[in-house]
Amino acid sequence: MTEHGSATNPATESVGIQTTGVTVPQGFAAAAVKAGIKPSGKPDMALLVNNGPDYHAAAKFTRNRVVASPVKWTRANNDGSFRAVIVNAGNANACNGAQGDADSQATAEKTAEVLGIEARDVAVCSTGLIGDVLPMDKILTGVDNLAPLLSEEVAAGHAASQAIMTTDLVHKESVYHGKGWSIGGMGKGVGMMSPSLATMLVFLTTDANFDDASQLDDALGAATNTTFDCLDVDGSTSTNDTVILMASGASGVTPDPHEFKDAIHQVCLDLAMQLQADAEGVTKRVSITVTGAASDTEAKDAARVIGRDNLFKCAMFGSDPNWGRVLAAVGMAPVEMDPEKINVSFNGSPVCVNSTGAPGAREVDLSGADIAVEVDLAVGEGRATVWTTDLSYSYIEINSEYST
Amino acid sequence: MTEHGSATNPATESVGIQTTGVTVPQGFAAAAVKAGIKPSGKPDMALLVNNGPDYHAAAKFTRNRVVASPVKWTRANNDGSFRAVIVNAGNANACNGAQGDADSQATAEKTAEVLGIEARDVAVCSTGLIGDVLPMDKILTGVDNLAPLLSEEVAAGHAASQAIMTTDLVHKESVYHGKGWSIGGMGKGVGMMSPSLATMLVFLTTDANFDDASQLDDALGAATNTTFDCLDVDGSTSTNDTVILMASGASGVTPDPHEFKDAIHQVCLDLAMQLQADAEGVTKRVSITVTGAASDTEAKDAARVIGRDNLFKCAMFGSDPNWGRVLAAVGMAPVEMDPEKINVSFNGSPVCVNSTGAPGAREVDLSGADIAVEVDLAVGEGRATVWTTDLSYSYIEINSEYST
Repeated sequence: MTEHGSATNPATESVGIQTTGVTVPQGFAAAAVKAGIKPSGKPDMALLVNNGPDYHAAAKFTRNRVVASPVKWTRANNDGSFRAVIVNAGNANACNGAQGDADSQATAEKTAEVLGIEARDVAVCSTGLIGDVLPMDKILTGVDNLAPLLSEEVAAGHAASQAIMTTDLVHKESVYHGKGWSIGGMGKGVGMMSPSLATMLVFLTTDANFDDASQLDDALGAATNTTFDCLDVDGSTSTNDTVILMASGASGVTPDPHEFKDAIHQVCLDLAMQLQADAEGVTKRVSITVTGAASDTEAKDAARVIGRDNLFKCAMFGSDPNWGRVLAAVGMAPVEMDPEKINVSFNGSPVCVNSTGAPGAREVDLSGADIAVEVDLAVGEGRATVWTTDLSYSYIEINSEYST
Repeated sequence: MTEHGSATNPATESVGIQTTGVTVPQGFAAAAVKAGIKPSGKPDMALLVNNGPDYHAAAKFTRNRVVASPVKWTRANNDGSFRAVIVNAGNANACNGAQGDADSQATAEKTAEVLGIEARDVAVCSTGLIGDVLPMDKILTGVDNLAPLLSEEVAAGHAASQAIMTTDLVHKESVYHGKGWSIGGMGKGVGMMSPSLATMLVFLTTDANFDDASQLDDALGAATNTTFDCLDVDGSTSTNDTVILMASGASGVTPDPHEFKDAIHQVCLDLAMQLQADAEGVTKRVSITVTGAASDTEAKDAARVIGRDNLFKCAMFGSDPNWGRVLAAVGMAPVEMDPEKINVSFNGSPVCVNSTGAPGAREVDLSGADIAVEVDLAVGEGRATVWTTDLSYSYIEINSEYST
């Protein structure tokens, strides 16, 4: 890890020494408990508190129109400041009607009460099965039990990152060290795109000093647009997706705006790559870069259409350089293209030139875990990368027997 | 089978007696041969000829912008008249550049030569792997061998329906008997929506009498819009999809326009259901009916979004009444809805009322092969049904090891 450097994640850390996570920046405390919501009995509630002196915050939410009660609560109170985030895993509190809304509010109120703050300063996040009423006795007891465990130790952030997991196989943490300030992050979910159990939740903390939340909002919006928003595991979008960034100002250091923006991007990218690597049933990490589009937005749309195509995803699972599926998929993208001039490469080897097969295309080796697909639409300068995964037997196994 | 009646398919016929298919209407001959294109050595070329006296025709093609050479040829010559259709299976002749275009033209010219007609009156269709150059020696020899086998016997249409299969497990034929006239049909493919190997090809014949092709075009457009266009197996769309209807006028009978339109719809629906039932890896036949939409088009769009959601499809595979996935999926549909008032039923049992779980929702039995999902968006009178399938291990198995 560099002093003034790039994002690092747990995989690069020494075993037993947790030096990443949301409590690395000064001014943040976290805690985790077993509230009894997950059938497994594992930790399932986490609390993250900003001890100040500043309480600036920015947040981004799912674009799904069916949104969970905690998203409604947090979105309604997203006014540039949050002092705490209360999270439960194992129950999404989505599609529970007025009862769900009341339960999210009660969770915020209880958290505010034990922390001695206002309920509107508490963000609420839930992840798990849609459509089951939240066990409020367990939730409220969980909040009571979380408060005395709050700690600014790195281990506390680490515990929180584990408590928010659902079908995640590994926890996800990241940190960026600036000169005298830092950013910490944790996330869960198998992708931006997965309802029910696969909600993406990301929590970022920083002790950098800002006058207000506007710079946080700018940096977070720019970063999510090119990281989490470009992660497309299965084309589905959760009712609960939430990304929250809180700034304590505790370092007293005001970072260079460009460095801060870049640092937020690095941490988000690092967490996004961790989410991709732990996606449900993943055996291949696939990046799809579209170039030559009319705009960056059209490039992203085209890359997403390819990334969502089940036949393409099956070919990736089979390490099959069946580039025809890329052509067939991109041909349905609602973007400008020259259908006779499309170029495709797999792992740097041209497999299709001017929409026609290249020599040796069927022999390209895709047996590794990482596959880079590049598609040139031949009409402009637009460019974007979307990250997806293959479609494997495990994905079906995980997702065919969830609620029952 | 009724004299004046509804579409029938092979499953309802006595074993050994083939009374359905494209040669049932008067004036049509068919043939099939083994040209050596399929590695399996099975029949892989078919010829369907309209012997007149009329040669009216209508055709519909894939909406994919990357289109195969045979589609380019047939679309360019779609002027209200075709006298023959030449089909090969095992090679899609897609993404083969100028060579592919020349090969499709040469195939049409050769067919025209042996039949003594004009090349522009020959429709060309190919289905199979994308990106391999067509083995023209085999194709041209195949055409030579097809011509002397042409027969108006029902068995000849049956043989043709088998020669056009790729990963199809069963052939698909249908017939409608009017008073003194009939419609015959054959199809292949595992859905409207599947590139590479899964192209949908449908050929319809009728001996009904018309002045020109306009009524054929109207009837075919209306029928495909509510049948094949509503079949969505995996969200993918082939580069080769083609539906062709030819009318010989040989019966001399001009049917009532409404009956004819309804009959074409019945035959298309029957073939669409056969395609759904034979979809790659299918274990569940799922119908998704959206009601209460702002328009029929919005209802279809919403139903399609649900039908393409992998998490929903996995739940269907697992017979899991996880209605939350329906809500999460439909929430991303770009249509008008009231997110707090959505109703969902599975097989007639309400599982979600006003976007909230209904009592007993988790116990609804989805163990049968047919699952009917109904979703009420609560904003209007629009209604549509989309047919899809579950996402199974077999789908991945079939599609992960195709080209190599």
